[in-house]
This record gives sequence, structure tokens and C-alpha cells, in this order.
Amino acid sequence: MAQHLIRAFNNPDVSAPQVELIQAFSRKKDQLIHLLDSGKIIDDFQDLAQADLYILAISDDAIAAVSSQLPFENRLVVHTSGSVAITDLDDKNRKGVFYPLQTFSKEKLVDFKNIPVCLETQNESDYAIVETVAKSISKTVFPIDSNQRKALHVSAVFVNNFVNHLYQIGQEICEENHVPFEILKPLILETVQKIMVLSPKEAQTGPAKRNDLATIKSHQLFLSNENHDTIYKILTQSIQHNGKKL
Amino acid sequence: MAQHLIRAFNNPDVSAPQVELIQAFSRKKDQLIHLLDSGKIIDDFQDLAQADLYILAISDDAIAAVSSQLPFENRLVVHTSGSVAITDLDDKNRKGVFYPLQTFSKEKLVDFKNIPVCLETQNESDYAIVETVAKSISKTVFPIDSNQRKALHVSAVFVNNFVNHLYQIGQEICEENHVPFEILKPLILETVQKIMVLSPKEAQTGPAKRNDLATIKSHQLFLSNENHDTIYKILTQSIQHNGKKL
Repeated sequence: MAQHLIRAFNNPDVSAPQVELIQAFSRKKDQLIHLLDSGKIIDDFQDLAQADLYILAISDDAIAAVSSQLPFENRLVVHTSGSVAITDLDDKNRKGVFYPLQTFSKEKLVDFKNIPVCLETQNESDYAIVETVAKSISKTVFPIDSNQRKALHVSAVFVNNFVNHLYQIGQEICEENHVPFEILKPLILETVQKIMVLSPKEAQTGPAKRNDLATIKSHQLFLSNENHDTIYKILTQSIQHNGKKL
Repeated sequence: MAQHLIRAFNNPDVSAPQVELIQAFSRKKDQLIHLLDSGKIIDDFQDLAQADLYILAISDDAIAAVSSQLPFENRLVVHTSGSVAITDLDDKNRKGVFYPLQTFSKEKLVDFKNIPVCLETQNESDYAIVETVAKSISKTVFPIDSNQRKALHVSAVFVNNFVNHLYQIGQEICEENHVPFEILKPLILETVQKIMVLSPKEAQTGPAKRNDLATIKSHQLFLSNENHDTIYKILTQSIQHNGKKL
């Protein structure tokens, strides 16, 4: 996350003139040397310069500790986590959240312009600061309180982590039966493109939606992996009951 | 499906010179009048002209009956279903399958060129016929036997129908918490784009993959809908066990 943010703030196409990346802190300066002038990289909290905003792009469980170690008070400090409360930040500074809702991996660059950034602060003047900074790198910026952010984070697990796991199961079924998974990729793309124009409920198709019991039964007989079968059953029932309690 | 095929065969950009759509049969001729010259639309099996290939683009449970009603013998007749065996076609004609692996809806046109067509016949000379026809409308054509076709169909339920249902759950969680589902769409797109370059296993992220038990517990406490909670639990366990038996 930190590296993607540094890249975004240093992109001359994106940055607004009033937003400047002053420093980046890392315990391992080497990891940032390909991204930033070495003069801007520090590894000692005592070297932190004065700034309008400090972004802690660190793992969830380090947020409380690192925010308490900062050697200053009453400045604006934000974290970038979808699941940590704003109140986990240390009380000695003003608090906020700067949560870019995207999946980041080191292997794949992302275009920050299209990533929604969810913002929360404890007062309005601080909101104006984080909003200016967020709008310098992204086209879409939302005020999102901690409860809404949690809903987004849980929802993201379904539409990103769990969806990816279903892709993996699809691939396993293909491999077991000597079919290239590639054949399914146009279908996978179309499934996503459909919900850009239809609601997921309108876009739903398949044997569970049609209540086609013969096909469902034949699929379940076909599935030799017990785990795949369990997931098939649960998701089929959920579609049949239209998401209501089973 | 029939309408999408008629559109594809009549597309002058796509059709090969040696492939010609001679007739389309429909019990309701009106439904095809916007797609085809009325002289080519028939509603009586007795009017069926001589052709190298007859495509039954009809619902699964009509395939056996319609193939038995055809008033000719020893011609090549194929169905377009992912889940019906080639042997369900009536014995009086030569049999085949012409299965475009895609999700079709009346509301949304598709570009047939990018749809993989899975082909099966009972002899090689018939394969050459269906291959010529399939290649006239699609860039990707695969020989797929009935068992492989079934694997693709089951796999498609996971990567299309079930994935779409997870999108619906994501939307429900957003709605319950007054967050626009739109915020998740860039993440949804990135999730798909990732598996175009990484395998699903390599692309997997999230609390279940990291075995982040604190986040998993907090998500489960957050989920008020029992059905969402059940699905969260099953898919989390499946990721934790990496798809192995629970």
C-alpha cells in the first residue's frame, strides 16, 4: 500500500500543485530507493518533518503502536485500513482515515485515479485536508464513517476474496477434467461487465435461479470434491431462497 | 441463444463465405422478424430445407423431443447445451454439440468473436463441418467431449452464477449500511483483471488467506444476516484449508 501511494503522489499527471509528498518513513530505506529521492526517505521518527498530514500505510496491528510513537502532538495522522477504527489511533494527534478501497499486490501496478478513497476525520477542517490530498490522486472520494467502512470491508471480502476463491474452485474442476481454464475467461469477464449495467439481482442466471433441480442434482453427482460440493449446496440454496434465511 | 446465433451468422464482418444461414425455425415467426428476411423464417418442420448442419438452439428439456420430430434422417444435428449429453439427440440423425460458453441475456448484446465454442461430434468429417461453422463466428473453438463439457458447465456455475450471487450479497451488505455499492465496482473489476495475469491461487488475498482470525471474528460479528454469515464461514474455511476437504 505504502509503495502504491508513493507512486501515486509522485505521478506528475495526477498530483495537484498544492499537494506535495515531503518524506517517506521506512525501517528499511532500501525498499523505497527505487521510488523516491534518497533525501526524502527517513528511518528515524526524530527526522520527521512538519507536515499537514501523516499517512500511516502500515499493517492493521501496527497502527496503535506506531501512532503512539510519533514524536509530536496535535497534528493530523490517518491510517489506511478498512477494518481498524479511527479511535485506534493515539489520542495525542488529530485522527483520520484514508482508505483506498482496492486490492494491492506487489506484482501488479494499479491506476490510483480509478480507486475510490474513503475518508473519515473527527472535524471538518481536517476533512478538507484529507479531501484535497485524496482528490490529488483519485477521481472518486467519499466521506465514509467507521461503520460504513466496516460494511465496505466485509462486502469487499465477498466480492473480491470469495469471488477469487470461486475462480480457484472453477480452475480446480477444469484441471481435474483436463479442460483449459482459459475457456472460462470470456465468461468471467462478461459476468463482471453485466453488473456494471444491471444489478446483481437482475443479472442472476443459472440452474439455482431457474430452480432447475435436474441440473443441480447432476452437478452435485459430478462434483467429487466434498468441499466443492458443500459450497455448491450452500450457494445454490442461497440463490433459491434469494438471500433469505435458510 | 437462438437470437444471438442468428445475429452472429448474419454479421457481415464475421461470416466466412462458405457458411450461410439458410433458414431459422420458430414456432413464433414474429420473434425473429427483426433479425432475418421473412422468407428465411419457417414455423413448420416440413418446410426445413436441405442443409449441412441443423443447430437446435433450444432449452435442454426440449432437445430429445425436437430432435425426434425432425422429418429427415442421417443429417448432422447438433444441440447448444452445456449440460445435455450428445446421446440425448435422436438416433436417426448424425449427432453433435455446438456449445458457446457464455451467459446470454436478451438485454445485452454479446460479441460472438470472443466466445469460446466447444464442439463435439461422433465422427471426424462431421467435426470438420461444425468447426468451419464455429470458426466463421468465433476466434476460439475447442474440441470438448461430453465429460469435459460437463466440467465446464459446473465450473461456469461457480465462476458465473455463484460469483454473481456474491456480488448480490456484497450489494445487500452495502444497502443495509447505507453505502453505495458503486464504491466496490473498481475492486470488482481489478479482482477479475488480476486472474487474467495471475492464477486464482496466486491472486488470493484477504483475512482468510492471511489467517487473520481477529478480522474474521469481527466480520462475523458484523454480519447480521444468518445466510451471509453461513456463506462467510464456509468460504473462509475453504480458503484456510486451501480447497481441501474440511
